[in-house]
Amino acid sequence: MPDPKLLEAFPTPTDTPFVIEHVADEFTSVCPKTGHPDFGVITVRFEPRPASAGGTCVELKSLKLYFQSFRQEGIYYEAVTNRIRDDLAALMDPAWLLVRTEWRGRGGIRSVIRAARGPVPGAWAV
Amino acid sequence: MPDPKLLEAFPTPTDTPFVIEHVADEFTSVCPKTGHPDFGVITVRFEPRPASAGGTCVELKSLKLYFQSFRQEGIYYEAVTNRIRDDLAALMDPAWLLVRTEWRGRGGIRSVIRAARGPVPGAWAV
Amino acid sequence: MPDPKLLEAFPTPTDTPFVIEHVADEFTSVCPKTGHPDFGVITVRFEPRPASAGGTCVELKSLKLYFQSFRQEGIYYEAVTNRIRDDLAALMDPAWLLVRTEWRGRGGIRSVIRAARGPVPGAWAV
Amino acid sequence: MPDPKLLEAFPTPTDTPFVIEHVADEFTSVCPKTGHPDFGVITVRFEPRPASAGGTCVELKSLKLYFQSFRQEGIYYEAVTNRIRDDLAALMDPAWLLVRTEWRGRGGIRSVIRAARGPVPGAWAV
Amino acid sequence: MPDPKLLEAFPTPTDTPFVIEHVADEFTSVCPKTGHPDFGVITVRFEPRPASAGGTCVELKSLKLYFQSFRQEGIYYEAVTNRIRDDLAALMDPAWLLVRTEWRGRGGIRSVIRAARGPVPGAWAV
Amino acid sequence: MPDPKLLEAFPTPTDTPFVIEHVADEFTSVCPKTGHPDFGVITVRFEPRPASAGGTCVELKSLKLYFQSFRQEGIYYEAVTNRIRDDLAALMDPAWLLVRTEWRGRGGIRSVIRAARGPVPGAWAV
Amino acid sequence: MPDPKLLEAFPTPTDTPFVIEHVADEFTSVCPKTGHPDFGVITVRFEPRPASAGGTCVELKSLKLYFQSFRQEGIYYEAVTNRIRDDLAALMDPAWLLVRTEWRGRGGIRSVIRAARGPVPGAWAV
Amino acid sequence: MPDPKLLEAFPTPTDTPFVIEHVADEFTSVCPKTGHPDFGVITVRFEPRPASAGGTCVELKSLKLYFQSFRQEGIYYEAVTNRIRDDLAALMDPAWLLVRTEWRGRGGIRSVIRAARGPVPGAWAV
Amino acid sequence: MPDPKLLEAFPTPTDTPFVIEHVADEFTSVCPKTGHPDFGVITVRFEPRPASAGGTCVELKSLKLYFQSFRQEGIYYEAVTNRIRDDLAALMDPAWLLVRTEWRGRGGIRSVIRAARGPVPGAWAV
Amino acid sequence: MPDPKLLEAFPTPTDTPFVIEHVADEFTSVCPKTGHPDFGVITVRFEPRPASAGGTCVELKSLKLYFQSFRQEGIYYEAVTNRIRDDLAALMDPAWLLVRTEWRGRGGIRSVIRAARGPVPGAWAV
Repeated sequence: MPDPKLLEAFPTPTDTPFVIEHVADEFTSVCPKTGHPDFGVITVRFEPRPASAGGTCVELKSLKLYFQSFRQEGIYYEAVTNRIRDDLAALMDPAWLLVRTEWRGRGGIRSVIRAARGPVPGAWAV
Repeated sequence: MPDPKLLEAFPTPTDTPFVIEHVADEFTSVCPKTGHPDFGVITVRFEPRPASAGGTCVELKSLKLYFQSFRQEGIYYEAVTNRIRDDLAALMDPAWLLVRTEWRGRGGIRSVIRAARGPVPGAWAV
Repeated sequence: MPDPKLLEAFPTPTDTPFVIEHVADEFTSVCPKTGHPDFGVITVRFEPRPASAGGTCVELKSLKLYFQSFRQEGIYYEAVTNRIRDDLAALMDPAWLLVRTEWRGRGGIRSVIRAARGPVPGAWAV
Repeated sequence: MPDPKLLEAFPTPTDTPFVIEHVADEFTSVCPKTGHPDFGVITVRFEPRPASAGGTCVELKSLKLYFQSFRQEGIYYEAVTNRIRDDLAALMDPAWLLVRTEWRGRGGIRSVIRAARGPVPGAWAV
Repeated sequence: MPDPKLLEAFPTPTDTPFVIEHVADEFTSVCPKTGHPDFGVITVRFEPRPASAGGTCVELKSLKLYFQSFRQEGIYYEAVTNRIRDDLAALMDPAWLLVRTEWRGRGGIRSVIRAARGPVPGAWAV
Repeated sequence: MPDPKLLEAFPTPTDTPFVIEHVADEFTSVCPKTGHPDFGVITVRFEPRPASAGGTCVELKSLKLYFQSFRQEGIYYEAVTNRIRDDLAALMDPAWLLVRTEWRGRGGIRSVIRAARGPVPGAWAV
Repeated sequence: MPDPKLLEAFPTPTDTPFVIEHVADEFTSVCPKTGHPDFGVITVRFEPRPASAGGTCVELKSLKLYFQSFRQEGIYYEAVTNRIRDDLAALMDPAWLLVRTEWRGRGGIRSVIRAARGPVPGAWAV
Repeated sequence: MPDPKLLEAFPTPTDTPFVIEHVADEFTSVCPKTGHPDFGVITVRFEPRPASAGGTCVELKSLKLYFQSFRQEGIYYEAVTNRIRDDLAALMDPAWLLVRTEWRGRGGIRSVIRAARGPVPGAWAV
Repeated sequence: MPDPKLLEAFPTPTDTPFVIEHVADEFTSVCPKTGHPDFGVITVRFEPRPASAGGTCVELKSLKLYFQSFRQEGIYYEAVTNRIRDDLAALMDPAWLLVRTEWRGRGGIRSVIRAARGPVPGAWAV
Repeated sequence: MPDPKLLEAFPTPTDTPFVIEHVADEFTSVCPKTGHPDFGVITVRFEPRPASAGGTCVELKSLKLYFQSFRQEGIYYEAVTNRIRDDLAALMDPAWLLVRTEWRGRGGIRSVIRAARGPVPGAWAV
C-alpha cells in the first residue's frame, strides 16, 4: 500500500533557485472499480527552497520504492495524483511542486491529471 | 442520439485546484449533409471547483458511453464541439472547461474546433 | 449489415501484372460480446488477373460504402477479416489477395489479423 | 483563377467564443516567375463573432473549391497568403483571423508566411 | 501466479490459413533476483490449424487475464517467454506460434526474447 | 496532357549494374470522375542496361517536366501508374523498372499502386 | 566570400503586418580554425514594415545565392549569424528580424545561435 | 576531475544581444553511491554581455574538454548541474545563463535538472 | 580494461531453439588515436545451444559490468566489435551469435560494425 | 577535386567475416549543369577480405578528407556514386562493397543511387 515513510530527502546543495524533474515511466496501480491494473507515467517537478532555508530534494531510489508501493493498491487516477502531491509536499515543503500523471487509458480514453502546490511558473504547469 | 443523461459525476477529492484531461481517440458521428461517417479525437480539459464548493468530476466510463451515443447522429463539427462543452459544463459547473475536437478531414482539409467555458489559462487553451 | 452487393469492379487496364493496395483508416464495427464499438485500419492488397483473362479491380467508392456497411454489425475481428477476404475474392477472383486488419485494442491488447487467397509473394504477406 | 465568390458562410451556432481551424494539405498554385508549380499547406484559424452579432463560419466544401481555384494561378507566396486573408475576412468579418501558408520550398529553402486580421491571441499566432 | 487454466480458446472460423497477432503493451512481472518489477511488451503470433482439423484461437479477454496472472510472479525474462509459448501451444496446438517479449531494461540494457513452436515463416520470425 | 516526348535520356556511365531511384513528392493530376485534384508521391526505380549494351538513364529535369504534364489530366490512379511505367520503359528499355504511386486518399481510403517491367529483385519490389 | 550585394528586395504587398520565415536546410561554410566544413540550417524570420512606409521583402532566389556565397568562407558560427542579421537588416530595415542558425556539431556538441534586430514578439524568438 | 581551468572564452563579436546554445549529447560521469556510470545530455544557453561591456563566449573545444573532465568523477545530478552553471558563470559573467541536464535514468526514472544565473527570459527557461 | 572474466553464464532453460537480444544504449570507450571518448550502442543477438547440449545464456548484470570495463580502454570500433564477439562466443559457445556496434560518429561520419559467429539466420544479420 | 590518394587503409583485424558501414551525413558537391551545390548522405558498406588474405579497411579520417575533396567538384549523382565505388574497391579490394548516395533533391524530386562491387548479400543491398 502507498507508504510515504519510504520517501527520503537530502539537503539541497545551493541557495540559487533550480528546478528538478523526475519522470517514472513504469508506474502501475489497480483500478478500485474493476480490479484491472492501470499503467501510467508519473512526472514530478519542483523547485526546492534555498539551502539556507532548509530546502530538501527527494532521494531518487526512495522515490522509486515509494512509487512501487502503489503496485497492489486499488486507487483512482485523481487520488493517485493528489496523494503523490501531498506526500512529496509534506516531505520537502518545496517552493513549488507539480505532479502530472498520464494514463494509458481504458475503453479508448486516455487521461492526464495535474496537481500542484505553490506558485508553479507558467512554463512548468503543462 | 447524444444523451447527456448518460453522464455521471463524482465529488472531486480535494480543495486544491487541479486539472483533468481526457482524450477519446475513437469518436465517430455522421455528417448531416452527406450521410458519411466522421472520425475525430475529442479532448476534454477542466478544473473542478473545490470539494468544499461542491466540485465534481465526470466519471470516465459514463463519458465513454456519452461519446458513443453520437455514433449514429447526423451533426456538424461545430455543433458536436459546442454540445459536448454545454453538456459537460451543465454536469460539473467547473472552474473552467475546454473541449477540443480534431477531425480526420474530408477532401484534403482537416479541422480542429475548440470551445470553452470560463477562464481557461493560456497554456491549456491550445 | 455487411453487404457485398455494394462492391463494384472495373476491368483491369493491362495484361502486365501489377499490385494495388487500399488502406482504410476509418473502419468501425461493433463487438458482438460487449456491444462496444471496435476501431481498425483495413489494408487490402491484390494483383488482378491479366486484362485478357478478364481481370478486374474493386472500385474505390464502392469499397468505401462496403466498409461503411459494417458500422452497426456485431462481428469479431477474425470474422471481419475472413469475410472481407471472401467478398473481395468472390468479386474479383484475383491472382492473389491479402487482407490485413489492425485493431486499436481493448484492455491493453492490440490485434492484427491477416487472411489471404492465392499465392501472396513474401514481401506482401506482412 | 482565385475566385472568392466560391466561398460560402453559415451562421455560427453560438454566442460563446470558440476557435475554428482548417488545414488544407493539398494546396497548389504556380510560380509567376518560373511557371513551375508550388505546393503548400494552408492553415486558416479564426474566431467567429457571436451569433447574436451576426457571426458566420466559412463552409468547408466551399473553402475546398476556393483553394482549388488557385491551381492554375501564377501568384507569389506572399500574395497567396494576403489574398486568402482578405477574402476570408471579407466573407466572415471574424473577431480575428490567421492564415498560415507553409511551402515545400525551392532550391533548398522552405518558407512559411503568416498574415492576420484583428487581435490574434498569442497562442494562436504561431 | 501464472495460471494457464485462465486461457480459453474458440474454434477457428475457417479452413483457409490465416495469421493472428496480439500485442500486450502492459505486461509486468517481478525480477526474482532483486524483487523489482519488470515491464514488457508481449507479442503473440500464430496460425491456427484449419477448422476441419480442430484448429482453435485463444480468446482475447482470457489472454488478458492470463497475462495479469504474472503480476506478482518472480520470474526471469527467458522463463516468461518460454512459459507463454508452452501454455499457448498446449492450449491451441497451432500450425505455428511465435512469442516475442520486449523488456524496458535495467542498468542501461534492454532485452528482446523470441521463442517459437513449429515452422514460423521467415517474415514472422522477427 | 501527359507528354512522353518531354522525357530525355543520357547514356549510363558504367557497365557495372547499379540502381537509380527518383522520388517525386509533388505529383498532382485530376480525378476523371469528380474533377477534383489528386495528390501523390511517385517513386521510380530502375537498373539501366550496361553502357556497352546502350543503357540509358532518364534525365532528372525532363522527368520533372514530364510529371508536371499530368497536372490538368483527368486520369485514374491505375492508369497513371501503368502509363509512367510504359513511357519510361519505352524511353530507356532498362534491365528492370518499378513505378510506385502513393495517393493521399479520398473518403478515408489511401491507395498505393505498383507496376513493373522486367525481373525486379525482391528487395526493390515493395 | 559572403556578398550582401547578391541580396535583392521587392516591395511588400500590403500595409497589414505579416510575418515571413525562410528556412535554408543546406547551408555550409568553413571552420576558420580547422579548415573543415561546417553544415547548418539557417532560419530567417521577419516582419516587413508597411508598404506605405516603404517596407520590403528579401527575394528568395537572391537569398539562396547570398547563402551560397558563404560556401568557401572561413567564418565562426557567431559571426555567420550576426553577419546575416546585419546584411538582411541593412537590406530591408524590417519592423523586426530574427536569424537562427543550427549547426550539426563537432566533437559531440551541437550549437544553436540566435541574433535579432528590433522587438521580436515572444512567440517568434525561439 | 572537473577542471574549470580547461574552459576558455573569447570576446563576443557584437554589442547587439544574441543567444548561444550548446548541446552536448555525450556526457558521462559516475554515480557516487553505486559507482555505475551516468549518461546525460547537457544544454548550455546564455546571452553574452555586450562587447563594449567586456562580454565573452565560451570556446567550443574547451567546453568539450571541460565536459570530458567529469568522466571519472563521482558526482550527483544536482551537483553536476550547479557546478557547470557556477563554472560557466564565473568564466563569462553573462547577461543570463541556463544549464539543463537530462539523464537517461536508473530503475525506470529519468531526470531533468535546470539551474540558472540572472534573468532567463521565459521562452529559454524550459 | 576489458575483462571477459566479469562475464557469467547460466544454463538455458529449454531444448527448444529461441533467440535472445540485449541492447546496451550506454557504451563508451576511448579512441586510441585521439584520446577522445567514443559513444555507441551495442546489440548482442544469439541462439543458445539446447539445454541438453549444455547450452548457456550470458547473465545480464555480468554483461553490464563487462561492457563497463571498456570505459577507459583505448580501442578501435572494429576491435571492440570483434573482441565482444570472441569473448561471448568463448563464454557460451552458442548456436550462433551476432554483435552489432553503432557509433555516434566523428567529423560527420557515423559507423556501424557487425561481427558474427556461426550461421546467423538472414533476418537476424542486419 | 576528388582525390583517391587521400584514402588510406589499415589491415583488417580478423579472418572472420564481418561487415563495416560508414554513413557520411554532410556530403556536398556541385551540379555540373547549374553550378548550384548538391547535398547528400553517403553510405558505404563492405566486408573486408580475411586478414590472412590481405584484407584491409578504409581509415575513417582519410575517408572524411576524401569526401571533402568533392566539395568544389562539378559532378552528377551517378558519377559520384560510381566513382566512390571504384575508388574504394581499388583501395581495399573487398569481398563485397555497396555505395548508396541519397540526395536532398531539386525541383521536388529526391534521388537515391546504389552501386556495388562483388556479391552483396540481399539484406545489405537496399
